[in-house]
Amino acid sequence: MRVEIWSDIACPWCYIGKARFEKGLAEFAHGDDIEVVHRSFELDPNRRKGDIAPVIPMLAEKYGRTLEEARAMEANVASNAHAEGLGYLADGRDHGNTFDIHRVLHLAKARGRQSELLDLAYRANFAEERSVFDSEVLVAIAVEAGLAEAEVRTVLADESAYADEVRADEREAAELGANAVPFFVLDRKYGISGGQPAEVFTQALEQAWQERTPVPALKSVQGDAEACGPEGCEVPR
Amino acid sequence: MRVEIWSDIACPWCYIGKARFEKGLAEFAHGDDIEVVHRSFELDPNRRKGDIAPVIPMLAEKYGRTLEEARAMEANVASNAHAEGLGYLADGRDHGNTFDIHRVLHLAKARGRQSELLDLAYRANFAEERSVFDSEVLVAIAVEAGLAEAEVRTVLADESAYADEVRADEREAAELGANAVPFFVLDRKYGISGGQPAEVFTQALEQAWQERTPVPALKSVQGDAEACGPEGCEVPR
Repeated sequence: MRVEIWSDIACPWCYIGKARFEKGLAEFAHGDDIEVVHRSFELDPNRRKGDIAPVIPMLAEKYGRTLEEARAMEANVASNAHAEGLGYLADGRDHGNTFDIHRVLHLAKARGRQSELLDLAYRANFAEERSVFDSEVLVAIAVEAGLAEAEVRTVLADESAYADEVRADEREAAELGANAVPFFVLDRKYGISGGQPAEVFTQALEQAWQERTPVPALKSVQGDAEACGPEGCEVPR
Repeated sequence: MRVEIWSDIACPWCYIGKARFEKGLAEFAHGDDIEVVHRSFELDPNRRKGDIAPVIPMLAEKYGRTLEEARAMEANVASNAHAEGLGYLADGRDHGNTFDIHRVLHLAKARGRQSELLDLAYRANFAEERSVFDSEVLVAIAVEAGLAEAEVRTVLADESAYADEVRADEREAAELGANAVPFFVLDRKYGISGGQPAEVFTQALEQAWQERTPVPALKSVQGDAEACGPEGCEVPR
């Protein structure tokens, strides 16, 4: 059974929600039969690529609050992160366009390193306040996740690399009715919005598992052709 | 849309069928939207691991034919391979247990190198008559496909590594009614048995594409929780 998770690296509830989902998954009896796929969603897709700014003043301006109030909002998120055992520094991180990060996450997906890179990018952004919007930081994290440095640099240098994959994920999110993240889709049947408590994920996994799509009866195309079976390779009669 | 292909490296019609499928896929208008996944199937699962033997005498014994007749069978397969532009030496390849090859193919899948390794293993087995049942040959091919040598050796040394994944593929083949390979499953709806002509694949892809599963209406679980959208990160009302 497949679980798809739409998220953005700039989204603190995605960071917290991934940890809560993984706790919920650990309590689920058939966790080994679950394939998790992470999908792209940009919170601020129209932001100019080089426009990187500290998050606290950005939040204050966005919500029309004082800097002190924006700090209190971040402190609240930080306490939720800490409750999940996650590092979170409530001041100092940057905000910016995440398209390049999503492109590199798609490279990581192709190389079987997607979850690793997502964890390291979240940690850098929220717990270490390294600017993941800086290409050199992103390269370093990607290499730490197991990717080949030259391949990461090639993808970053070519703005079209994995761009269609990012946009396809975003289009699919819209088609599925997701307008905020994290957004979890179980077996293309159940949608879960937001960083729910771990037990909500466990229960939803159990429910989706009970109702999971059975092995279908396939419609046959064109009769048989040359094939090999345990009895040998023969042209079918 | 996803296409799953069950095959065994010891199966000449899988080698030929992969080339025919890829020709058919190249003629299909939405090829970029097709995800191809290769799955494991063993033709001779009960063969002892070290029991490696030249294929011509094995075929003669299996079918109760003379060596000359077995050579003619292989020559017929070779001419089919040549017609697809594939190398095929009609004499000299080995037969053996393919479980380890399937385990390494699953490692390659996890690293995004599955199709590359499958092509190189087929080429080694059928066109170059390098014995892919020899671990050192398998390691060399896997490295050529882009895998890290140490990781390949670790998988080969641990007989449980990716063993469950191989068996899960084989169980699924049985559940889908496949008892010979190559076996192609389109969008979990159409089954195609054997190395059909390329145009059969193109037509089946077009048919499955017309009928592909639309984006489902998701059932919502538990209402919303903390999430971030374009308007910001807020606790839902």
